[in-house]
Amino acid sequence: MSDPTSSVLEVFENPFPNRSYTIDTVCPEFTSMCPMTGQPDFGTLTISYIPDQHCFELKSLKLYLLQYRNHGAFYENVTNTILDDLVSVTKPKWMKIEAAFTPRGGIRTTVIVEHPN
Amino acid sequence: MSDPTSSVLEVFENPFPNRSYTIDTVCPEFTSMCPMTGQPDFGTLTISYIPDQHCFELKSLKLYLLQYRNHGAFYENVTNTILDDLVSVTKPKWMKIEAAFTPRGGIRTTVIVEHPN
Amino acid sequence: MSDPTSSVLEVFENPFPNRSYTIDTVCPEFTSMCPMTGQPDFGTLTISYIPDQHCFELKSLKLYLLQYRNHGAFYENVTNTILDDLVSVTKPKWMKIEAAFTPRGGIRTTVIVEHPN
Amino acid sequence: MSDPTSSVLEVFENPFPNRSYTIDTVCPEFTSMCPMTGQPDFGTLTISYIPDQHCFELKSLKLYLLQYRNHGAFYENVTNTILDDLVSVTKPKWMKIEAAFTPRGGIRTTVIVEHPN
Amino acid sequence: MSDPTSSVLEVFENPFPNRSYTIDTVCPEFTSMCPMTGQPDFGTLTISYIPDQHCFELKSLKLYLLQYRNHGAFYENVTNTILDDLVSVTKPKWMKIEAAFTPRGGIRTTVIVEHPN
Amino acid sequence: MSDPTSSVLEVFENPFPNRSYTIDTVCPEFTSMCPMTGQPDFGTLTISYIPDQHCFELKSLKLYLLQYRNHGAFYENVTNTILDDLVSVTKPKWMKIEAAFTPRGGIRTTVIVEHPN
Amino acid sequence: MSDPTSSVLEVFENPFPNRSYTIDTVCPEFTSMCPMTGQPDFGTLTISYIPDQHCFELKSLKLYLLQYRNHGAFYENVTNTILDDLVSVTKPKWMKIEAAFTPRGGIRTTVIVEHPN
Amino acid sequence: MSDPTSSVLEVFENPFPNRSYTIDTVCPEFTSMCPMTGQPDFGTLTISYIPDQHCFELKSLKLYLLQYRNHGAFYENVTNTILDDLVSVTKPKWMKIEAAFTPRGGIRTTVIVEHPN
Amino acid sequence: MSDPTSSVLEVFENPFPNRSYTIDTVCPEFTSMCPMTGQPDFGTLTISYIPDQHCFELKSLKLYLLQYRNHGAFYENVTNTILDDLVSVTKPKWMKIEAAFTPRGGIRTTVIVEHPN
Amino acid sequence: MSDPTSSVLEVFENPFPNRSYTIDTVCPEFTSMCPMTGQPDFGTLTISYIPDQHCFELKSLKLYLLQYRNHGAFYENVTNTILDDLVSVTKPKWMKIEAAFTPRGGIRTTVIVEHPN
Repeated sequence: MSDPTSSVLEVFENPFPNRSYTIDTVCPEFTSMCPMTGQPDFGTLTISYIPDQHCFELKSLKLYLLQYRNHGAFYENVTNTILDDLVSVTKPKWMKIEAAFTPRGGIRTTVIVEHPN
Repeated sequence: MSDPTSSVLEVFENPFPNRSYTIDTVCPEFTSMCPMTGQPDFGTLTISYIPDQHCFELKSLKLYLLQYRNHGAFYENVTNTILDDLVSVTKPKWMKIEAAFTPRGGIRTTVIVEHPN
Repeated sequence: MSDPTSSVLEVFENPFPNRSYTIDTVCPEFTSMCPMTGQPDFGTLTISYIPDQHCFELKSLKLYLLQYRNHGAFYENVTNTILDDLVSVTKPKWMKIEAAFTPRGGIRTTVIVEHPN
Repeated sequence: MSDPTSSVLEVFENPFPNRSYTIDTVCPEFTSMCPMTGQPDFGTLTISYIPDQHCFELKSLKLYLLQYRNHGAFYENVTNTILDDLVSVTKPKWMKIEAAFTPRGGIRTTVIVEHPN
Repeated sequence: MSDPTSSVLEVFENPFPNRSYTIDTVCPEFTSMCPMTGQPDFGTLTISYIPDQHCFELKSLKLYLLQYRNHGAFYENVTNTILDDLVSVTKPKWMKIEAAFTPRGGIRTTVIVEHPN
Repeated sequence: MSDPTSSVLEVFENPFPNRSYTIDTVCPEFTSMCPMTGQPDFGTLTISYIPDQHCFELKSLKLYLLQYRNHGAFYENVTNTILDDLVSVTKPKWMKIEAAFTPRGGIRTTVIVEHPN
Repeated sequence: MSDPTSSVLEVFENPFPNRSYTIDTVCPEFTSMCPMTGQPDFGTLTISYIPDQHCFELKSLKLYLLQYRNHGAFYENVTNTILDDLVSVTKPKWMKIEAAFTPRGGIRTTVIVEHPN
Repeated sequence: MSDPTSSVLEVFENPFPNRSYTIDTVCPEFTSMCPMTGQPDFGTLTISYIPDQHCFELKSLKLYLLQYRNHGAFYENVTNTILDDLVSVTKPKWMKIEAAFTPRGGIRTTVIVEHPN
Repeated sequence: MSDPTSSVLEVFENPFPNRSYTIDTVCPEFTSMCPMTGQPDFGTLTISYIPDQHCFELKSLKLYLLQYRNHGAFYENVTNTILDDLVSVTKPKWMKIEAAFTPRGGIRTTVIVEHPN
Repeated sequence: MSDPTSSVLEVFENPFPNRSYTIDTVCPEFTSMCPMTGQPDFGTLTISYIPDQHCFELKSLKLYLLQYRNHGAFYENVTNTILDDLVSVTKPKWMKIEAAFTPRGGIRTTVIVEHPN
């Protein structure tokens, strides 16, 4: 399977561009593969942003994230890359992603990234 | 069914206009229709405000929200429009609406709008 | 039944008046009557304050609140009036009341008042 | 709007008809109208059954329940009628419906019906 | 205030008398007075029954319970009396009441009565 | 301090002796002393019973339990002794006590005794 | 990807075959594909069994379940097939699987299968 | 470190041998080593029993369980062995152990053993 | 019993005096006597502090708090006195005590004191 | 067993060194020995940091923490030492450790340390 691409992400025009408001989107069914062990990782992504001219469309977000299902990547890479992709497509005033992964070896990791930074 | 109208909203005089205080109103039974699929959306609206000269009357708020039951609208539009309607009728010192919609396709969205902004 | 009166409220001397500290008092069994429908309202009052020279006595607080049991009053009036009464009797450095009423018509309301304001 | 009809319900062949097993389906977004007040009722339906030759199809169940959105009916009628409709279409070995409605007037009602009885 | 009377209780015809099914009704806002101290008691009544020819009407149940608001009675008396009143009016196949009172003196009491017994 | 005595326990006449019903009493503030270490033990007693001719009076129960505050006794002894005392005074049709003690050394113990047995 | 095969399942000898005891195994990270939409399904499998001569090995169970990651199958098929595979390999005295899938379209489904039946 | 031995377990005389009653003991800090990986396992043991002539002493139970800290053993072996040891020392009328281990590889296992069986 | 004395409190040298860090200590088993009614009060003390040269030793803290078991004192006095005692003995950079008492007469009180103030 | 050493800790290059972001790692299975009593202590470590050039590798973190399993150390020493070791190896922009230990003698302690300080 080829690398995840942001080209599947679609946006729509922010209907209230003059007001700064926040959209929180929680995706509890994110899954990718560990590049070391080939085992699946599971996690919950919480994406918060203040849209400028565009909002991302939820069905396309789902398709975008689905690309990670059989893609090998470390936690820090996954989270930062998704932020970069979403920022480049929606150009928000502000965006934050919290990626809370389920425990591995009894240890639970959450990565929190923000734009601008 | 015609579009929701703010004309059903009624207000009463703020009994303590000299004190800045906060009223939180939680409406867990909000429902509207998705304009794309024709399927119902469900959500919880939390309306917080500091009244100035007027407070909104709860029964009229319920009637106002009931108009969205068979009305098709996207999350961002619904939330911003309700804020605009409530602000225009009650002219509060400050108002915030958090609209937490139930999951669709495994994804949960919350829209948070504030006035002034 | 006559109107609630603050005259039943008793205070005692703050034993540590030189230290600014906070007392939180939670009264989950507050009940009054809706002046429109004659139906009972129920709620939880959370009273927080920094005492100056006096603290209110809990048994007298209970008697004071008991006066609202058959008294008709709207949420905003009840909460602001209780704050005014408690402030006039205890003259605190600071006081806040959060009155969280149980749902009516599927809608839940909380009123938050503070002194000074 | 005409009365809800079971004709929208679709079934598929039970893939394991020789084993008695249970399917629980929870629908937390059920809503109908109170025939007295014209106000919406909300509830969670939990449908449990042991299929015989057929299982009901979930998308058609959703369409079936959607018919109650603007239909006026009392709790006891709604729950018994849905059981009758689902039984007539799927002919299960056993079926139970628990309909837990959200509070009205501070009172919460749950209706539990079972077939055969 | 005179004693609570079952005469305010209204019933309606059980729409499905041939099926034995259960109705659970939870009333979390029950309050009466302690006959010893004159202080209010609070509790949650859970009424479960299998109707025969009649169901009790919820608004009349609320009015019936409201009569206990200023009525002095012990836990055991209240619970057994309410069961007797509801049984005499609805003549159910079976009925159970669980009355869970809020703590007094750090002690929490629940009374559970059943008919027939 | 002398040994706890059941003589402080008071009863009142069961107002509905012809119906078998259950009274649950939860006492989350029970405390006694460990006879080995002299350290306090804490626990929650849940007393359930079907009264025959008498019910125990709650204030006297509280006084009775208060006697254990400075009394040294092991978990098993405390629980069985309280059951024996309550049974001898109230002569119930059935009684059960669950005594859930707070953790000691990372280990949590609950003793459950029943009469008749 | 080829169909899931039970050949990856490994067993070890039950160390206490003379005692009937129960092993519960919860797998909250099960995922398969919906054969209709091509979208992923997520669920929690709870496998309970009384082993006879063999227990299944957990790492091989994980590999076995991993085969469903890109396999299209309906809820009822998945659950019954996994039961059949585990039964054929471990030959337990008794086994039950509860498969609780995450909501789709606002509806949550759990399938419960048991052997023998 | 040598193998765990039941010789450290101490008992005391059951003070109420004529009454059949239950003692539940929860040990949330059990830990042993996986014999395959050398990694620690963690779990919560819940030991329930009806004592006959003897009860086990809690401090000695703690010492007994502490022996597993650096001992390699599989879940099924650990749980059955602890049951055998506790039964041989206390000779109870009945005993059950539930050993709930923390997740490994995203999979959570509980072993439940009972005596007699 | 004589008054509680801080002389039983023992300290040890802060092993990392050059780093400002926080120690939170939660004591859920605090109990004292009400000086008015002679009835026991129960509460949870949460002691947070930034140590300077000394930390308090936990066993001695327990002995110190145990002195309040049969000591009559009001909530405000108890909390402020414990703060004064702990501050005088450990001389911390900062300390805060939250004393959350269990409900009396349906009212729950928490006292929060801080040093310096 | 020799003292814990930071030499087992491994790092990898921060893949996004130009963005300041946060990594939270929760280790609920930490255990060490009390140097006074020889009894095991249990706790949950929450390590939060903003990486600079390096991130710590999770498997090596687990090995590092495993060294404390049979090592005697007080709460304050353990927490500060782990912070010093992790800081020296990863040289983060910021790091915080919260070590929440399970209750001993009914008292629960949490130590919170931060770098820089």
